[in-house]
Amino acid sequence: MAKETALDKVIALAKRRGFVFQSGEIYGGSRSAWDYGPLGTELKENIKAEWWQAFVRGRGDMVGLDSAIILPQQVWHASGHVKTFSDPLIECTQCHRRHRQDHLEEAFEAKKGRAPSGMDEIVCPDCGTRGSWTEPQQFSGLMKTYLGPVDDEKGLHYMRPETAQGIFVNFSNVVTSARQKPPFGIGQIGKAFRNEITPGNFIFRTREFEQMEIEYFTHPQEAGQWFDHWVEACYSWFTDLGLKPDHLRKFDVPEEERAHYSAATIDLEYRFDFQGSEWGELMGIANRTDYDLGSHMEASGAKLQYFDPKTEEHYTPYVIEPSFGLTRAMMAFLIDSYTEDEAPNAKGGVDTRTVLKLHPKLAPVKAAVLPLSKKPELAEPSQKLADQLRKHWNIDYDDAGAIGRRYRRQDEIGTPFCITVDFDTLEDQAVTIRDRDEMTQERVALDQVQSYLAAKLLG
Amino acid sequence: MAKETALDKVIALAKRRGFVFQSGEIYGGSRSAWDYGPLGTELKENIKAEWWQAFVRGRGDMVGLDSAIILPQQVWHASGHVKTFSDPLIECTQCHRRHRQDHLEEAFEAKKGRAPSGMDEIVCPDCGTRGSWTEPQQFSGLMKTYLGPVDDEKGLHYMRPETAQGIFVNFSNVVTSARQKPPFGIGQIGKAFRNEITPGNFIFRTREFEQMEIEYFTHPQEAGQWFDHWVEACYSWFTDLGLKPDHLRKFDVPEEERAHYSAATIDLEYRFDFQGSEWGELMGIANRTDYDLGSHMEASGAKLQYFDPKTEEHYTPYVIEPSFGLTRAMMAFLIDSYTEDEAPNAKGGVDTRTVLKLHPKLAPVKAAVLPLSKKPELAEPSQKLADQLRKHWNIDYDDAGAIGRRYRRQDEIGTPFCITVDFDTLEDQAVTIRDRDEMTQERVALDQVQSYLAAKLLG
Repeated sequence: MAKETALDKVIALAKRRGFVFQSGEIYGGSRSAWDYGPLGTELKENIKAEWWQAFVRGRGDMVGLDSAIILPQQVWHASGHVKTFSDPLIECTQCHRRHRQDHLEEAFEAKKGRAPSGMDEIVCPDCGTRGSWTEPQQFSGLMKTYLGPVDDEKGLHYMRPETAQGIFVNFSNVVTSARQKPPFGIGQIGKAFRNEITPGNFIFRTREFEQMEIEYFTHPQEAGQWFDHWVEACYSWFTDLGLKPDHLRKFDVPEEERAHYSAATIDLEYRFDFQGSEWGELMGIANRTDYDLGSHMEASGAKLQYFDPKTEEHYTPYVIEPSFGLTRAMMAFLIDSYTEDEAPNAKGGVDTRTVLKLHPKLAPVKAAVLPLSKKPELAEPSQKLADQLRKHWNIDYDDAGAIGRRYRRQDEIGTPFCITVDFDTLEDQAVTIRDRDEMTQERVALDQVQSYLAAKLLG
Repeated sequence: MAKETALDKVIALAKRRGFVFQSGEIYGGSRSAWDYGPLGTELKENIKAEWWQAFVRGRGDMVGLDSAIILPQQVWHASGHVKTFSDPLIECTQCHRRHRQDHLEEAFEAKKGRAPSGMDEIVCPDCGTRGSWTEPQQFSGLMKTYLGPVDDEKGLHYMRPETAQGIFVNFSNVVTSARQKPPFGIGQIGKAFRNEITPGNFIFRTREFEQMEIEYFTHPQEAGQWFDHWVEACYSWFTDLGLKPDHLRKFDVPEEERAHYSAATIDLEYRFDFQGSEWGELMGIANRTDYDLGSHMEASGAKLQYFDPKTEEHYTPYVIEPSFGLTRAMMAFLIDSYTEDEAPNAKGGVDTRTVLKLHPKLAPVKAAVLPLSKKPELAEPSQKLADQLRKHWNIDYDDAGAIGRRYRRQDEIGTPFCITVDFDTLEDQAVTIRDRDEMTQERVALDQVQSYLAAKLLG
């Protein structure tokens, strides 16, 4: 049996503690998507909030947008998705990349000077596995739906496979109403849908997923420097929130592997340690040039250009696109923070403890209030404290079992602070606050708890 | 021509200033959904954050959830949606409620003792309009999509028409992993999709929309008192955030108009002042009894019950459901805050000004930094101040045009505070902060601006 990896342990923890549930589990479950439980929802919300603050609200050159999932059909014709996604494809069963069979056969012939005898001979250009292919299928990665009373061509609509196009088609609306001029960007967080043949690797590849995307519009001559800026900004965002630099790397995607519209792509890869592939794509930064605005201009007749009154130049901005997968980011933060270390137990020995050393800003529960006894004289001030802290943060309240067990429960979900209310509290009006990582304890006056936490959590 | 209502003015303002854009506008637009521009996205996020804080994080008896949009087919069979939504329906073109034609004909015959000569005779039981019906259509309110490589029965899935069912099917997962016991509730914010025949009234009725839903699980005997609790809690939430009590009313939905599963429903109605109907449903609170948990138990075989160790009783909890439409809430806050009053102009007279008197917590921009001149000696400290404030809030920066015009631009989008940086600032290291509603001005030291705003915005 293979050794249990951090990934396996994180998946088990995520299910047990209510970060992630199998979607529709009572009906046998779905492979397409996952449901996020109380802790997963808070963690996901915290990641979104940090992203929005870092990249949208916190910057003078960025604004937000929230466009619809179901856009008019024409958007997906102009973007190339309807055409690109409707080829007969075969998929490598190892790495799940899809290819046109005829292209693979041509490449084989070009190299070997003869046609392949069958697909058994053909090696996956992505992962190097030989002859592990699905049957070819006319396969659209777009998910369809029908609007209106009849399921006909007129009612056919697609669910967005990326949030990006909703930004491009609103370029002029934003420039005009928000008085923006390049260089500036538009950020969006939202769901996207892709009909993956083989969803897998927990929340890494799903048919329903969440993206956090930025389209940053620049003068064509400044696109290169902004590309570099965004690569660094994205990398720092992850490491500032605690991801270990050893587990994060930049992959400069070579031309033949890039999307056709991209003049340069750098993927940030995280060491997910999947079976068969150590590193996985966490996000990508692409220089999409003027491909998208140009395509929509041509298809719609709208003028998606910028006029610079200073230089009197009309131009189609280039676009730098940092595109994040929200649940991939969540998965990376969970794996990276998963730690097993030793903690003293009640018998004077040590126990192994599991700790999620999540950045306090990401931790789903910021503090737990733990009365040492269920008696009313402790329960009352404990509830009062919890209610007071809930005005600011997500707070747990746990009065069940030995204090050591309660610490373990909070460590396992990454709660930065445990606040113990004991019988001394009735005398000194103070509580003991325990630090998750250092396991140090401090006595803090009841009326100082809020400011103590604020300093630690916001600082 | 009809008098321009507050609703008309708000719609025009929302489009002009980038709260709401027509979805896919450059391709002729969609009637199904709307796109939210920079200000609309911030406003919507603020509403969500307030809701989540008030009803989920802020309460010890609530947790959050985020379930998938595409759940297994069986969920929608068990919930009754597949069956209920597949009847031949006709729709009243005035109030957009749909009815089974045969039911209306039977009701007519029961009352008059004869069959109707045609639909012209039949009055809409909802709004009283006579003979204004669409043709009957086999109409499903569920939007379908197909997962997997082939569009067949096996791949057929539905997009959720409500977030509620994702909560019910996770009942046991949450009870177990989050250690909750009734009375407790699960809150969720997310998109839902309904194939409305006639979307309309701006963002009021759309095919793609956002819900904020709570399913609150109680002992059957306590359901009545929790129903009353939630009616008051929802009402107060709106009025605490500034909605005028005169514009909000409770409508006790009579039995014959309630959903079949509901033992009691109270709608909160807002005075939207639509053409032809003054009041519109803002949200509803329903007592869904044990209908949903019972249906899913029967269909799945899972045990969605609670065992109370104290009384040793097994029971299926009753559910109180407060269900909010996010964009309906946004629309109500916009209409309610829309004000026209008078402001002094530069010539010593008065101008009419448009102000969105939004609650500061909802305002999309919290403060605007306005340097009195574009000269570097003012631009530099102004940018520095804006960047400092952006660490906490969404901040505008506007250095274009007369100061009076800039105030008007901020008033119109509801910015609570305008901060003017002038040449005196260079001497006294202070700025002038103007209050949106009172139009009073205060001189505040530069290093006190952040705490000044924090006190006003958080207090």
